[in-house]
Amino acid sequence: MVNSSVNQERRRDLTKIPPKIYIFDLDGVIYRGSEPLPHASDVVSELRNRGRAVYFLTNNSTRSRNDYASKLSGMGIHTKPSDVMTSAYATALFLKHKNVNGVSAYVVGEDGLRKELRDAGIKILGSDASSVDYVVAGLDRSFDYDKLAAAQRLIIGGAVFVATNRDPTFPIENGAVLPGGGSIVSAIETASGTTPIVIGKPETYCVQMILESAGCSADEAVMVGDRLDTDIMMGNRVGMKTAFVLTGVCDRDDIPNAPSDMHPNIVISDLIELLDEGWASN
Amino acid sequence: MVNSSVNQERRRDLTKIPPKIYIFDLDGVIYRGSEPLPHASDVVSELRNRGRAVYFLTNNSTRSRNDYASKLSGMGIHTKPSDVMTSAYATALFLKHKNVNGVSAYVVGEDGLRKELRDAGIKILGSDASSVDYVVAGLDRSFDYDKLAAAQRLIIGGAVFVATNRDPTFPIENGAVLPGGGSIVSAIETASGTTPIVIGKPETYCVQMILESAGCSADEAVMVGDRLDTDIMMGNRVGMKTAFVLTGVCDRDDIPNAPSDMHPNIVISDLIELLDEGWASN
Repeated sequence: MVNSSVNQERRRDLTKIPPKIYIFDLDGVIYRGSEPLPHASDVVSELRNRGRAVYFLTNNSTRSRNDYASKLSGMGIHTKPSDVMTSAYATALFLKHKNVNGVSAYVVGEDGLRKELRDAGIKILGSDASSVDYVVAGLDRSFDYDKLAAAQRLIIGGAVFVATNRDPTFPIENGAVLPGGGSIVSAIETASGTTPIVIGKPETYCVQMILESAGCSADEAVMVGDRLDTDIMMGNRVGMKTAFVLTGVCDRDDIPNAPSDMHPNIVISDLIELLDEGWASN
Repeated sequence: MVNSSVNQERRRDLTKIPPKIYIFDLDGVIYRGSEPLPHASDVVSELRNRGRAVYFLTNNSTRSRNDYASKLSGMGIHTKPSDVMTSAYATALFLKHKNVNGVSAYVVGEDGLRKELRDAGIKILGSDASSVDYVVAGLDRSFDYDKLAAAQRLIIGGAVFVATNRDPTFPIENGAVLPGGGSIVSAIETASGTTPIVIGKPETYCVQMILESAGCSADEAVMVGDRLDTDIMMGNRVGMKTAFVLTGVCDRDDIPNAPSDMHPNIVISDLIELLDEGWASN
């Protein structure tokens, strides 16, 4: 009996298949502000050495993929823009995929979002446009009543309302926060009476774009994040393995208070723990 | 049998008591923009001649009671500031009643709200305040990200969040709308993670202040309004008679689609129909 059980265990080990792809959230996972988090660079290198694909996924729509690739490379994590998915780039893909011919958008957002949309061939119109195909909203630290009124008018006039994300807050240094894209989206939603299509986490469009690009299925992928209500929920929704890292905005005590669809597969204090891949192997 | 029935009917008529107080919403009921609506002045005069008290109640927090009294008087409806209740003045009363000693507030709002708060002895602090007792938010056509961030910071820091109203839109001429106070409140609610105390309609604080001031009970009062989701709902909540007038933003077809707590006692096309008071008599 004992021998048979050991043999079965060994057979399971031999047939275990490690993940093919790791997707990391950025702020609170790879770095905090401008400071890299412990072992981030080493862990990414080691996973790549093992042949795993590594992607980075952020809801932050204020910067372009180029900006993030530069920032990560500057921290010793060599990164191409194509390794990065942002809610801004995913929004550009979404608008592009929906429409073969060029579309127009009114944008409540910052330079990163505008760049991604322009690069995707989307025509960005000003607040005096009489109509547009889409109103796209994300974090905009120059948000004001006139932009809110223009978004309202264009959505009531028939534009489709798309939100890069609904993050209520935007973390800055020392644990402080600023209003996130979600607070701007809420204002437009109330004023227009229209619920937006949401692109960012915990919605699944961004991760589906990554999996498609990598040619992987969700059960071959691991999502590593510091937020139960975005990273972990999104990973669970698509059927990825989920690793909850305690270096960001949430802590272990948040898990029992969260709904079960936000519960991670594992909880880690340091990214180095990811290198024991047994938990995530099929 | 027939005689007895007639006598009973007569007795009921003789014991009918007409309403003591009429409360009118303003925009869409008494006037539309700067144009008085048909019979508004005549109806108010006739009700006053009959000894009924007449009050005006608006969710608009951008002007003071003085401003509304001047506007109405200029339309031939002689009005004292004390005949007018606004969500701004009610908010000032709410803060004053809660605190015998002076309190401080950070205000996201316009001049009317600031004036009412200042007149009530509330100390208004700027966006650089380290803490305040209350954050008060209403329609602010100079709303911007910095105000949103200040409101968020102060509420997270412990300030009580009070909203003058949650109207999603603000009607302007020709049926067009601008974002209402409710859209600004939504942004602050999302950013701060805090649900506000709401003062304006359909909440009942404003009307309770009117009834208290008039020394009347709700069943002696009639609410006349053009919005099912604010005027009529509020009137029903406190047990007033409710008259829905079709000169504003809603029409008769909205009634079957509205929940039963928004159904009025009568529907009128013109304020003159109020002068047959039989429907509202006890």
